[in-house]
Amino acid sequence: MTITEMKLHPIAIADPPLRSSYGLHAPFALRTIVELKTDSGITGIAETYGGDGPLAGLEAARPHVTGMDPFQLTRLFEAMARDAVAASDVAGGRSQTYLVPGENPLDRHMRTYAALEIACLDIIGKAVGKPVCDVVGGRARDEVSFSAYLFYKHAGGGGVGGDAREDEYGEILDPKAVVRSCRQMIDQYGFREIKLKGGVLDPEEEIASIRALREEFGASYPLRIDPNCAWSVDTSVEVGRALKDELSGGGYLEDPCATLEGMGEVRRRLLAEGNDTPQASNVAVTCMAQVPEAGRLDAVQIVLSDPHYWGGVRQVQSLSHLCGVMGMGLSMHSNSHLGVSLMAMAHAAAAAPNLTFACDTHYPWQTAQDEVAAGGRIPFHNGCVRIPDKPGLGVDLDYDQVARGRERYEKIPLRKRDDEAEMRKHVDPNWKRVLPRW
Amino acid sequence: MTITEMKLHPIAIADPPLRSSYGLHAPFALRTIVELKTDSGITGIAETYGGDGPLAGLEAARPHVTGMDPFQLTRLFEAMARDAVAASDVAGGRSQTYLVPGENPLDRHMRTYAALEIACLDIIGKAVGKPVCDVVGGRARDEVSFSAYLFYKHAGGGGVGGDAREDEYGEILDPKAVVRSCRQMIDQYGFREIKLKGGVLDPEEEIASIRALREEFGASYPLRIDPNCAWSVDTSVEVGRALKDELSGGGYLEDPCATLEGMGEVRRRLLAEGNDTPQASNVAVTCMAQVPEAGRLDAVQIVLSDPHYWGGVRQVQSLSHLCGVMGMGLSMHSNSHLGVSLMAMAHAAAAAPNLTFACDTHYPWQTAQDEVAAGGRIPFHNGCVRIPDKPGLGVDLDYDQVARGRERYEKIPLRKRDDEAEMRKHVDPNWKRVLPRW
Repeated sequence: MTITEMKLHPIAIADPPLRSSYGLHAPFALRTIVELKTDSGITGIAETYGGDGPLAGLEAARPHVTGMDPFQLTRLFEAMARDAVAASDVAGGRSQTYLVPGENPLDRHMRTYAALEIACLDIIGKAVGKPVCDVVGGRARDEVSFSAYLFYKHAGGGGVGGDAREDEYGEILDPKAVVRSCRQMIDQYGFREIKLKGGVLDPEEEIASIRALREEFGASYPLRIDPNCAWSVDTSVEVGRALKDELSGGGYLEDPCATLEGMGEVRRRLLAEGNDTPQASNVAVTCMAQVPEAGRLDAVQIVLSDPHYWGGVRQVQSLSHLCGVMGMGLSMHSNSHLGVSLMAMAHAAAAAPNLTFACDTHYPWQTAQDEVAAGGRIPFHNGCVRIPDKPGLGVDLDYDQVARGRERYEKIPLRKRDDEAEMRKHVDPNWKRVLPRW
Repeated sequence: MTITEMKLHPIAIADPPLRSSYGLHAPFALRTIVELKTDSGITGIAETYGGDGPLAGLEAARPHVTGMDPFQLTRLFEAMARDAVAASDVAGGRSQTYLVPGENPLDRHMRTYAALEIACLDIIGKAVGKPVCDVVGGRARDEVSFSAYLFYKHAGGGGVGGDAREDEYGEILDPKAVVRSCRQMIDQYGFREIKLKGGVLDPEEEIASIRALREEFGASYPLRIDPNCAWSVDTSVEVGRALKDELSGGGYLEDPCATLEGMGEVRRRLLAEGNDTPQASNVAVTCMAQVPEAGRLDAVQIVLSDPHYWGGVRQVQSLSHLCGVMGMGLSMHSNSHLGVSLMAMAHAAAAAPNLTFACDTHYPWQTAQDEVAAGGRIPFHNGCVRIPDKPGLGVDLDYDQVARGRERYEKIPLRKRDDEAEMRKHVDPNWKRVLPRW
C-alpha cells in the first residue's frame, strides 16, 4: 500500500473571544485538514494546526509522503527530524513560554509529523479493520474522560458577519459567570473534572472563581487552574497557598510561572509549608528531553501531552511511558479544534496507560456549524468520548463542511495565530504580553 | 479475531559447555515454543526461556490469553502486571546479580508477557500482511547487525549420547583459541563487532585475549568484554585502564562489577584518568525504573535490551526511547536460542531507532540439528540478519523438529538453568559463584 496523494485543506472555524495570558482568541481559529490517499482506495485523515506555518511544514514534507508506505512511520519521522536539523538555524528558541501553541518554528517538524502519523494510523486502522488505539498496542480504556475547560471571555460567540455564531456562554469575567458557564458545560457534556484558564484577571479574582467552583460543584469535581506563566514565583506560591484545599484531590496547578527553575522553586516553597499541590506543564515541558530535567528539579509532577503537539499517537505513548518511569503523571492539553482532532486525542489517550487525568478539550467552544466530521459533532457520554467500534479514527469527513471551512479561510486575512495582536485590536491598543504580569 | 488455543512446546537443545561467571552451561539449554491459534486460522509463534518456571508463568497466563483479541496487548500487559503485584510476596529480589537470566521470579511476568506479545505480533503481522517491525511503527533498518559472541569453553559441542553435537569450536581457554574461534565465526557469519564473555579466567588472561583479538582483527572490529560482575571495583578499573584503547571506538565494558553504585565508581575513577570507556549493563539495569538511576549515577552508558527479557518488542521500543531521552545508548543481549528468537530479536532491533551497536546472539553456538525454524538455520549476511519480506516474524515452525526438541526435553531431568550446579558436576565439585572473584 502506497500513499499516492496528500491533500491539504486549510480551514477557518469560528472561535469565541476567549482570553488567556497570551491575549485574545481571534474570531476564527485556523486548522488544517489532511487527507492521505492510497493506491488501495483507503484515505486517512487528520486535523492539525492551521495557517501559513503549519501548511508550509506539511508542504515541505510532501516529497517524503507521496509514495510512502503508511506503515513506514519510523523512517518518515527520521527523515523529517533530519530536515529539521538541517533547518535548525531558523530564528526562535525551544521554549514555548513566549509563543502561542503551534507557532514555535524549532519543533514544527514534530507537529507536522504528528498530523501525518495520525492520518497514516487512520489508513492502517482502516486497512486492518481496527480502531487506531488498537493498532498501536491496544487500548487501556474504552472511553476517555475530558474536563470542562473554562475560559474568561468577552461577549460573542465567535466568527464575524454571516459567520457570526450564537453566544452560548456570554461574557465570563467574574466568578459568577465562571460558575454559570461550568454548569452549562456540565449539563450539556457531563464533565467530571474542571479546568479554568487563568492568567487573565487579578489573581484574587481567579482564586475567587476557583473557590466559587468548589462551592458550587463540591470536592468530587477536581479543579485545576492554568495561568500560562502569568504569575511570579511569589504570586504562584500565594495562589498555591490560597487554593491548597481546592487544588488537592485530583486537581493541579498548571504552569503558574515561567521556566522549570521557577516551578521548582514554587514546588519547594509549597512543600515546605506541607502543601503538595502537584504542578502540571505544557509550557515549561514541551519536549522529551525536558521531562527528566523537570523531574530532577521536582518542578513538574504532571506532563500535559497532546498528539498534535508531541509528535502523534505513538509519541504520546512514549511520553506516557517516560512519565511513568519518572514517577510523573500524564494529562492532555488542547487547542481550538474540531471532531477529527477530538478523535485523535481520544485514541491517543485510550492507548496511553499512564494517563490518569481527564483531558482538556476546547470542543465546547466550537459549534456544529463549523464541524467537518460526517454526522456532525462527536457525542460525549458523562464527560467521556467513547472509542467507536469503527476502523481507524472512526470519523469521516463531511466534504461540504470542509469546503465551507475552506471558503471561510479564503475570506479572512488571518494566517497565523497571534493572540497579542487580537488583544490590541479588540481590547486594549497598548496591550503587551508581560511575564510575570502579577 | 480471537485466540482460541495456546500450545506450549517445552524443548531442549544441545548447548556447548560455555563458561561465564555464573558457571557452566549444561549440555542442553531449555526453551519454550509458544503457539497461539486464532479463530481466523492464523497461528502466531514465539520462542522463550524454558523449563518449569517459564512454563508455569505461561500456564498461569492461559486464562488471560484464551479468548483474547491479539490486538489488545495493553490489557494483557496490565492484567499480568496486576497478577504479578498480587504474587509479589514470592521470594527473591529484583536484582539479576545472583540469578542466571530467566530465573528471577519477580519479573517473570515481563518475560511471560514478552513471549505472548511476540506471538500476538506474529499473528497481527500475518493478518495485516506486514513484518512485525512494520506493525509496531515501522523499521529503522532493513537488516540487523549481530556481534561475534565469544565464550571460553571446555571441549565438547553440547548434548549427550545420541544427541551429542560436533565440537565445531573445540576447547577455548586461552587467547589463541579465542582468536581462532572468532576467526571461525567471522568467516562463517561475517560479524563486524566482537564480544567476549569474560569473568572466567584470571583478568590478566582475559586482557590478553582482548589484546589478541585487537591484534588479529584490527581497530575496525569494535571489542567488548562482559565478566558478569566477576570483578571488584578495583579490578574493573585496572581492566578498564589496561584495555582503554581496545574498548574505545565502538566497544564497551559490560557489567564489570556488581551494582550501579559499583559501576558508577568505576566510571568516575576511569573518567578521572581521562578514560571514557563506556559501560554497558544487563545485570545492574534490568527494569525501566533503573535506567534513570543508572543515568543519574553515570554508571551505565549503554543499556542491553532483549525482547525476551524486557517485555517484548514494544517494551524494547520504549526502552530505546527512554535511553535516547537519557542520552544513553542501546544494545541487545542474548541467551542460548534458536531461529524464532533470533527473528524476534531482529524485528525488535529493526524497530528500535536508538539501537546503535551490533546485538549479541548465541546463535553460532547452536546447530541445525536442533533448529525448529522451517527451512533450517536463519542466514546471516555480513553479520546481519535481514528482515524478510514476509508477514509476521517471517519464520514458521518445523513441527518435526519441534517434536524432536520435545523428545529431548522429556528424556532429560533438567528443568531449570543452574550454571553453578553444572560447574560443580563437570568442573569443580567445590565451585561456588563468588562475587567479586577477582
